[in-house]
Amino acid sequence: MSHVPARSPRPLHSDGAITDVAGIEVGHFTDERRPSGCTVVIAREGAVGGVDVRGAAPGTRETDLLAPGNFVQQVHAIVLAGGSAWGLAAADGAVRWLEERGVGLDVRYGTLPIVPAAVLFDLPLSHADGARVRPDAAAGYAACDAASREAPAEGNVGAGAGALVGKLFGAQHAMKGGIGTASVTVGGVTVGALIACNALGDVVDPDTGAVLAGSRTDDGLRLRDTRRALLRGELPQPLLAGTNTTIGVVATDAVLTKVQANRLAAVAHDGLARAINPVHTMSDGDTLFALATGRVPLQGDAPGMTVLSTLAAEVVARATVRAVQAARAVQVGDWRVPAMNDLAKTQEAR
Amino acid sequence: MSHVPARSPRPLHSDGAITDVAGIEVGHFTDERRPSGCTVVIAREGAVGGVDVRGAAPGTRETDLLAPGNFVQQVHAIVLAGGSAWGLAAADGAVRWLEERGVGLDVRYGTLPIVPAAVLFDLPLSHADGARVRPDAAAGYAACDAASREAPAEGNVGAGAGALVGKLFGAQHAMKGGIGTASVTVGGVTVGALIACNALGDVVDPDTGAVLAGSRTDDGLRLRDTRRALLRGELPQPLLAGTNTTIGVVATDAVLTKVQANRLAAVAHDGLARAINPVHTMSDGDTLFALATGRVPLQGDAPGMTVLSTLAAEVVARATVRAVQAARAVQVGDWRVPAMNDLAKTQEAR
Repeated sequence: MSHVPARSPRPLHSDGAITDVAGIEVGHFTDERRPSGCTVVIAREGAVGGVDVRGAAPGTRETDLLAPGNFVQQVHAIVLAGGSAWGLAAADGAVRWLEERGVGLDVRYGTLPIVPAAVLFDLPLSHADGARVRPDAAAGYAACDAASREAPAEGNVGAGAGALVGKLFGAQHAMKGGIGTASVTVGGVTVGALIACNALGDVVDPDTGAVLAGSRTDDGLRLRDTRRALLRGELPQPLLAGTNTTIGVVATDAVLTKVQANRLAAVAHDGLARAINPVHTMSDGDTLFALATGRVPLQGDAPGMTVLSTLAAEVVARATVRAVQAARAVQVGDWRVPAMNDLAKTQEAR
Repeated sequence: MSHVPARSPRPLHSDGAITDVAGIEVGHFTDERRPSGCTVVIAREGAVGGVDVRGAAPGTRETDLLAPGNFVQQVHAIVLAGGSAWGLAAADGAVRWLEERGVGLDVRYGTLPIVPAAVLFDLPLSHADGARVRPDAAAGYAACDAASREAPAEGNVGAGAGALVGKLFGAQHAMKGGIGTASVTVGGVTVGALIACNALGDVVDPDTGAVLAGSRTDDGLRLRDTRRALLRGELPQPLLAGTNTTIGVVATDAVLTKVQANRLAAVAHDGLARAINPVHTMSDGDTLFALATGRVPLQGDAPGMTVLSTLAAEVVARATVRAVQAARAVQVGDWRVPAMNDLAKTQEAR
């Protein structure tokens, strides 16, 4: 059984991209066999990094070194991957690719690339019928090979290839998640986000409160509205822990300390809170990294941390919305998972 | 110069109250001289407590003992107070009141009430013109004396009396904040919240995306929309650190461990992220406590932690909205701070 990944060209109503941040390159590897893959965000000249893990079921690598008191000051790439804990192997490929190019921390015995990573659980699609398709070191290497300063593809690509959203009432009611990006430039500072959304909850448009994609009604034709269903007393399906997760990177060209980068990652989660409901649950491993490439000092009339944090939350929310707007339906065997634009068409036809 | 606190009776479109949670009593002390005060949430029979501090400028007391590994398992009250760091003294009065009633932890030498507290910065109103009106131990004691199982008053009372919202472009453009409450009952479990909102940012209705109260335009007649103003490149006023802050309590009658109570406090912040923008900033000390009074076991068909967390975020968002819906204009000297309902009237009249 083969799987043809849907093409997700960048649509016209694009909202900027994380690659608008100077010093940031992005590459996807999308598996051709099953919906899975990985995405790498490269800061070839190094970037000050931070992280905040707010989901209860995370899968991560090299997050401890991002704590402000710890030694390493710069990271060289972030890997986002499907494949749950197995997908952490993708970072090995990114480490090798960067080492071959002399990118890393000089540790006398070699140039050691610092590559934090986080994974999401896309096994319902990538491991259906006993398949064991998951990002490995070669996938991570291939993602680096594909990296560029161009705006990355969105939707069913890279770490978003196998992502689903709206699983609280069972995967059979879910819709296609994906990966999305957005950026804003204010006062000479650019902030961008790249979000792979595989949330247990629904994706919501914060500007209207409307649910965009998530758990569908039993007939599969309409959105259930997970939050309101829970408030009505509908009981969720028994959940397999860790079977969800939204992961991403917020990047800025501002000069930040490690303390500030960690703060930026923390407040960026407010964007997830606005665009996903419920979020940060016991079976989401929601993790956001922050990267500061250090081109624009925060002084004079440049925005300060409060403005920067506001922008970070904003681009995270927009990139999350983009992840489901750009997603396309997938079929694996008999199981067809619709995307937001399918449901929109159904609604129009009614 | 005297200050007459506005009466804020509970309006008809109330949304439940934290006192719907069995074992929870609430009392306000509202200062008659200037807009300031404090609020106590009492769990006379003890409650498992948790906390999450997500703002960058907090003022707190007894939060360290709430860490899961630490000794104390039950707390007896939470104090929310105006007066910035001075207001922490209000907890002394609550400790005395509880001790006199034999409520506390038996430590052989006495009955020791455990009373975590958080404060907000209401000095622009309470300390205008050199006044030094701030909650003290007597205020905390009076709040306990006023406590009952009845739904608490909302708006310009207790810890919300001197609260303002929408200060990022200067206090002169701010509107009146306040205190609000909400609750929901799902599957036999009740979750309630009490939120004193003194946010730097605007208060937003998450169901529509509409800004309800916050920074006003220079003519004072309309909402500026802080988020969109920042995105347009408008620069905020230089900020005095810590001059804001939203504080509150989420309570449930569920049986929770300390670990779960801390988790509930963490996810409850998603409600603040949905109802306030920007939030968790460098000059907000946003702090939420969780209390579990332990009447309903989470087993069988009862909601699990994911549902409970969803409900916690929901009631926190609703209580935040209630805080500004119930707020009323105040005048201190020449300075009149309008409330949400004043602006609504202005809009209707235009």
